[in-house]
Amino acid sequence: MRALRINAERLQNNIRELARFGQNEQTGGLDRTTFTEAELAARQWLKSKLLDLQLRVRVDEAANIWATRRGAGQWTVSGDSEVMECPEVSEDLEVSGVPDGQRISDQSGNLAAASSFGASGRARESLPVIAFGSHIDTVPNGGKYDGALGVLLALEVMNVLEENKISTRHPLELVSFSAEEPNPFGLSTFGSRAVAGKLSRGDLAGVRNDQGQLLTEALRRAGGDPEHFEQCRRDPEALAAFLEVHIEQGKRLLDRGIPVGIVTAITGIYREEITVTGEANHAGTTLMQDRKDALMGASEMMLAFEAVCRKHQADEAVGTIGRISNEPNAANIIPEKVLFHLEARGADRQHVQEMIEDWSQQAEGIARSRGLRLERRLILDQAPQPMDARVIDVSAAQAEALGIPVLQLGSMAGHDATHMASLTRAGMLFVPSLGGKSHCPEEESRIADIEKAGNVLLQSILALDEQLSR
Amino acid sequence: MRALRINAERLQNNIRELARFGQNEQTGGLDRTTFTEAELAARQWLKSKLLDLQLRVRVDEAANIWATRRGAGQWTVSGDSEVMECPEVSEDLEVSGVPDGQRISDQSGNLAAASSFGASGRARESLPVIAFGSHIDTVPNGGKYDGALGVLLALEVMNVLEENKISTRHPLELVSFSAEEPNPFGLSTFGSRAVAGKLSRGDLAGVRNDQGQLLTEALRRAGGDPEHFEQCRRDPEALAAFLEVHIEQGKRLLDRGIPVGIVTAITGIYREEITVTGEANHAGTTLMQDRKDALMGASEMMLAFEAVCRKHQADEAVGTIGRISNEPNAANIIPEKVLFHLEARGADRQHVQEMIEDWSQQAEGIARSRGLRLERRLILDQAPQPMDARVIDVSAAQAEALGIPVLQLGSMAGHDATHMASLTRAGMLFVPSLGGKSHCPEEESRIADIEKAGNVLLQSILALDEQLSR
Repeated sequence: MRALRINAERLQNNIRELARFGQNEQTGGLDRTTFTEAELAARQWLKSKLLDLQLRVRVDEAANIWATRRGAGQWTVSGDSEVMECPEVSEDLEVSGVPDGQRISDQSGNLAAASSFGASGRARESLPVIAFGSHIDTVPNGGKYDGALGVLLALEVMNVLEENKISTRHPLELVSFSAEEPNPFGLSTFGSRAVAGKLSRGDLAGVRNDQGQLLTEALRRAGGDPEHFEQCRRDPEALAAFLEVHIEQGKRLLDRGIPVGIVTAITGIYREEITVTGEANHAGTTLMQDRKDALMGASEMMLAFEAVCRKHQADEAVGTIGRISNEPNAANIIPEKVLFHLEARGADRQHVQEMIEDWSQQAEGIARSRGLRLERRLILDQAPQPMDARVIDVSAAQAEALGIPVLQLGSMAGHDATHMASLTRAGMLFVPSLGGKSHCPEEESRIADIEKAGNVLLQSILALDEQLSR
Repeated sequence: MRALRINAERLQNNIRELARFGQNEQTGGLDRTTFTEAELAARQWLKSKLLDLQLRVRVDEAANIWATRRGAGQWTVSGDSEVMECPEVSEDLEVSGVPDGQRISDQSGNLAAASSFGASGRARESLPVIAFGSHIDTVPNGGKYDGALGVLLALEVMNVLEENKISTRHPLELVSFSAEEPNPFGLSTFGSRAVAGKLSRGDLAGVRNDQGQLLTEALRRAGGDPEHFEQCRRDPEALAAFLEVHIEQGKRLLDRGIPVGIVTAITGIYREEITVTGEANHAGTTLMQDRKDALMGASEMMLAFEAVCRKHQADEAVGTIGRISNEPNAANIIPEKVLFHLEARGADRQHVQEMIEDWSQQAEGIARSRGLRLERRLILDQAPQPMDARVIDVSAAQAEALGIPVLQLGSMAGHDATHMASLTRAGMLFVPSLGGKSHCPEEESRIADIEKAGNVLLQSILALDEQLSR
C-alpha cells in the first residue's frame, strides 16, 4: 500500500481528454459553464470513465455525480436482496455491472452508513464513506485545472486502487459537484451547498439564467431532480471524511518553490455595498471648493481600503473593490452617487473585522470632510472555515513519508470543501498555479507538482481508511 | 431712451407661461428636450408672442426662430417690391402683417445687410443686425431659466421698444436657437453651430435619437430644412453684435451678492478619455503586493487630478471626472481595465494646459509604480472664446449708469454665444443662480436680479445701436 503511486501519464491523458469539452478556439480557454452543452458532454465523459472502473455511479437530485467503491470493513450484505430500494436515486441512475463475487451493487452513499435499514432489511453496520473530488464546471474562458484537477485526481486514485485490487475498510466515493463556479444562474458552490443542506427547493424557484432558462429545467437536463431536491442532502453519519485537491490560484506555493499545500482554513468572505452620495452639478460652473463629488470621495475611500489591507500584517488578509457604478455618469456632470462593492477576506475572522473597522473610521472621516453621505449594506459575511486537524495531520504525515515538502496555508478562494466541512472532516490539498493565474486560459500547473499532490491524496485516503474508526 | 425699463411683471408672466410647456408633474422640473412635443409647443407659443409684436418671424433651416425688428438707419426700400423673394425661407414661415407705413416686410436677416440684391433688386445699404436671445430647450428634468430666460428677456426688450415706439438704426433680431442643450441626437449648441457654419448637411445624415427617430425628420417637424441646411449660415457682414443673457449656473455672483455678471470669456473645454489597464485576477488568492489593480490606479490618478485643479490659482480653472467604467466589474475579480473621461475647463487656454501637464506627470508616475498601462485619447479641445471687448465695455458702462453692480467673470459653461462670437461681436450677461443650481427642478433666479440684467441688456442694445457705425 505504501508503494502505491498514481500514474502521471494516465492522469495527463485524462486532463487532455476532459479539456476537449468546452474548448474556446479563439482564446485557448475553456467555456464549460455549468449545465451548458459542453458541461453536459463533460459529465457524460466522466460517467463513462467511472463506469469503466465498475464503480457504482449515481447522479443525485442536485446533479452531483457520485461514484462509489465499496468498503470491506463492517459491511454486511442483506440476505433477502442484493439491491435495496433507493427512493432518492434519480431516474438516470447508471449502475455498473457486478464484475466479481466480491463486489455487489451498492446502494446510494447516503444509505451506505445506515445502521438499520427499516422493517424489510436486516439490521447491519457499515463504515461511513471517505469522499474526495471537486467540480468540472469552469468560469467562461477559464482553464483546464480549476476544479477538473480535483476530479481527475480522484478518478486516478480510483484507477490505482482498482488496478491494484486494493480493498479499503471504508467505502470510497468520488464526487463531482455541480455548479461550483459563479454561473449565469447566480448560485455558486451549488452542488456542495445542496449536499450540506444549505440550499432548499425554494431557492431554485423561478431562478433563470440570462437567456431565460429556468434553473430547474437545466438541473433536470443534467440528471437532477428539483422536485425532490432536498433528498440529495447527506447525513453526516454517512461520511467519514472529505478531501479535495485544487489549484492554489495564488503564488504562495510557487514563490516558495513548494509543490504541495495543505489547507488549514478556507477564507471567510465579507462583502458590503457602499453608497456614497454627493451633489450632481455642472462640471463647468461649479468651483472646486463648492463640489460634493461622490466619485472623488469614493476614490479616497477605496484607496483607504487598499492601504488598510496592505498594512495588515496577515498575508492572507486581502481586500478588493471589484465593482463600481456612478450616477449620472456623464462627462460634464459632477458625480452624484457612487456605489461600490467592498470585499474583505481572511483566514481569521478577526483579521477581517480589524480591516473593516479600520476602514470604517477613515471612510466616515472622508465622508464628513467632503460633505458626502455614506451608506453601508452588508451583503455577505461568510465565516472562515477551518479544515479538520486530523485530515491536516494525516496529509502532512503522508507527505513527509513520501519526502514531499509541503506548506500549510489558508485557501483564499471559496471551495466545495467549505460546505463539506459542515458535514464531515474536510481537508484540501493545493497544487501550485504557474504565475498564480486562474480563471483564464493561461491557468497552468506542472505535472510534477500534480503528481506529488496526487500521491499525497492517495496515501492520505489510505491512511484515513486505516486510522479512522468510523 | 435712458429712462426705458423692462416690465418685470410682464416678464414674470411670460416666464410662468413658457414654464407650462414640458412640466414634469412628479418632479416639478421641465422636460422640454429639443424637438419633443413639449418643445414644439413652446416654439408655437414663442412665435405667436413674436407675431403679436408685429415682428417679422422666420424659422431657418436649422429650425432656429428669428424675429426681426427693422432698423431705421441706412435702410432703403426697393422700389419695385416691398417683399423680396426669399428662397431660403422655410415653408412654415409666418409673416407679420404690415401695421403702418413705416414697417415693411423685411427679408431674411441673412440678406438684410446685403449691399447689392442681384439683378432684380436695386442696390441699397443697410446696417447689420444687432441680435440677442438664447434657447428654449431644456435638459431632461431641467429648470425654467436655463436658456428660456435669455429668450424671454429678448422678447421683453422687443416689447419695451415696441410699446415705446423706439426706432433703432440697426435692425434688431431676437433669436431662439435650436437644441442648445445636450440632447438625444447627441448634438448640443446645434442651432448656433449651424448658423456659424460649424455644422453641415453631412453632420445630420443618419443621426437618430434613442427612439430611432432621424434628426432630419425631427428638424423638419420643427420647421427646419435639412436639404438646404447650410443656407441658415449667417454672413458675418450681416451682423453687428450678439448679446445673450443666461443664468450663471454657478455661485460666484451669489456668493458676492452681485446681481449681474458680464462675461469676459466662455470657457475652453478639454476632454480626454483615459484607459488604465492592469491585470484581472482572483480577489481572494492574489496577495495585495501581487496586484495590478486598474481601479486603485485610476482612483489615485483621479484624486491627483482633483488636487491639481484645486491648487491651480485661477478660480475658473476646474476639472471633473464625470464618467467611469470598470471591467470586468465583478465583486470577486480585481479590476483589469478602467476607463474615465477627464475634463478640464478654464477661461485661459494656458490654465488648462498647466493642469493637464501637471496631472500627466503624476498619472505616469502612478501607472509606473503600480505596473499599469496608461492610455490617453483626446476627445475635445475647444479653445476659450473671449467675449468682445466693446460689448463688455458698453455693458459695464450701462450697468454703471443704471447704478447696478457687476462682476466681470468667465463663463464656465458653453453657450450659443461661443459660436456667435465666431461671426460677430458677442457678449453675455449673467444672472445669479440661487444655490448655484442648474439643470434641475430647483433652478431659480430672483426676479430683482433678472430685472437688473434685463435693463442692462436693453440699455446695452440701445447703446450699441448708437455707437456702432456698422
